[in-house]
Amino acid sequence: MKRILVTGATGFIGRHSLAPLVARGFDVHALCSQNVPVPAGRVSGVTYHVADLLEGDAVKPILKELQPTHLLHFAWYVAHGKFWEATENLAWVAASLRLFQGFSENGGQRFVGAGTCAEYDWTGGVMIENQTPTRPHTLYGISKNALREILEKAGANAGVSVTWGRIFHLYGPGENPRRLIPAIITGLLNKTPVPCTHGRQVRDVMHVSDVGAAFAALADGTADGPFNVATGTRTTIAEIAGMIESLTASPGLLQLGTLSAPVGDPPVLVADTNRLRREGAFLPTIALADGLREYISRLGAARPPTPSFNQ
Amino acid sequence: MKRILVTGATGFIGRHSLAPLVARGFDVHALCSQNVPVPAGRVSGVTYHVADLLEGDAVKPILKELQPTHLLHFAWYVAHGKFWEATENLAWVAASLRLFQGFSENGGQRFVGAGTCAEYDWTGGVMIENQTPTRPHTLYGISKNALREILEKAGANAGVSVTWGRIFHLYGPGENPRRLIPAIITGLLNKTPVPCTHGRQVRDVMHVSDVGAAFAALADGTADGPFNVATGTRTTIAEIAGMIESLTASPGLLQLGTLSAPVGDPPVLVADTNRLRREGAFLPTIALADGLREYISRLGAARPPTPSFNQ
Repeated sequence: MKRILVTGATGFIGRHSLAPLVARGFDVHALCSQNVPVPAGRVSGVTYHVADLLEGDAVKPILKELQPTHLLHFAWYVAHGKFWEATENLAWVAASLRLFQGFSENGGQRFVGAGTCAEYDWTGGVMIENQTPTRPHTLYGISKNALREILEKAGANAGVSVTWGRIFHLYGPGENPRRLIPAIITGLLNKTPVPCTHGRQVRDVMHVSDVGAAFAALADGTADGPFNVATGTRTTIAEIAGMIESLTASPGLLQLGTLSAPVGDPPVLVADTNRLRREGAFLPTIALADGLREYISRLGAARPPTPSFNQ
Repeated sequence: MKRILVTGATGFIGRHSLAPLVARGFDVHALCSQNVPVPAGRVSGVTYHVADLLEGDAVKPILKELQPTHLLHFAWYVAHGKFWEATENLAWVAASLRLFQGFSENGGQRFVGAGTCAEYDWTGGVMIENQTPTRPHTLYGISKNALREILEKAGANAGVSVTWGRIFHLYGPGENPRRLIPAIITGLLNKTPVPCTHGRQVRDVMHVSDVGAAFAALADGTADGPFNVATGTRTTIAEIAGMIESLTASPGLLQLGTLSAPVGDPPVLVADTNRLRREGAFLPTIALADGLREYISRLGAARPPTPSFNQ
């Protein structure tokens, strides 16, 4: 029997991994913390548990009782804008090492970690697993990369298969409203001017439910090591913003070039997804236009009766 | 006032850092665990504390009470032969991250970590800080390197100066008797044949009290980043064994070439020590012949009345 424990299971990405895992025949156990409690809308077929991974051995009894064969580890400190350099990254590395150890000691067979495109050296533009050098610059990227390096070796020693999904850019319901795509959508829905950078940045943008499903596929696979979790489709920020402009029928409000791009913002940051497609056996299912249309309709329905951008 | 907390302070290297730190004007606090208790012969001017760094927050009250400005972190899992791939490395990374965090939160200014030559890519033979790539192959080397990468960035963010002494080969009183140099000394003192590998391996071998003193110098300095802790003198294993043969007056017992060298044993593994000499302001004081002579005399005095290598 395949039994999986998913940490961060009610977070932005984690919640989208649960139904695909159930569909793949896993006995799915979702770990939530007090901070991100069990949601009202539980996923059918999933057993929910509450424990704080940052609290020493809080997860140990759960690992001992469940003896999960698989572990999908999403939980991390993700406060918008702050997580890149937050000291909390250290505590999450420590907690992840303890989690891995407890998993391994209780018969765990396959561990899937949530990595990041920020582990890579971005100068090449196109990131290829096991070929593009790692060269993280943020504490978040350094911490995830360091954790991966330790767990890959510890897993090899302990007979635990370790794989690692490197998340690129993503969007979708549940994300922080200050992130790029929801901020543009909300601004345009509210018919207010939306300042933007030049918009020529080339990115790979994946819908969060495809991200969740990709991790379910990785958990269900056998290949070790890093996988880019991305669509393989290149889009500029201006194209995305233009699609939203068109879908919200809000011409003339988008102000490209009125914000300066962040220092070090790479012109191209995209994923080679051959490994995910071939060895990971995963193809994304949600085209950007469809994902944006559905997202816009949700955010539109959720708007307050007298919308104002500054309210 | 400079107040330093030394972890692993009663261990093989740590104990040799204490007197040099006192001599440099530090208020020295030594942290010991139950496993390596406070020794009978305490170093004058040092205050001893007991706490287990692996036990969650055990060290926090000590950090809060002492508010050390400096921290010298030697404590790690070091069981002879086993530490290279031991799963305990994970717990020590986690404990070290918690320790750093507690130190930083309590006003810590300078953190000195104990790294290893096993962080480097060994193919070049001569290891130079910030030039030779890192490419650790053991779980120990990977763990130390990963910890360093995280702490260097976390330190830069938090305003804590982080430096890192990469230890090469060392010897001296207190080391595990199964290690190369004491095993040769004991064998030759006992007039038993001593099997050896070919002995052509070029190494840099430092006396443990110089290692301890070098770390005291690093703690007392201001430069950040990695420092090789080594002598800069190249010696072959055969030369070391020959010196012991001569000092113990035991000709004909050394059997070079009767053991096969370990797989992957590098022909040359030595340190460039320019950084330690210039920026670290440290020069080793114990010549190999003198260190060996004193060591032999100690081990000779400690011999049982009816010596036997196999006893």
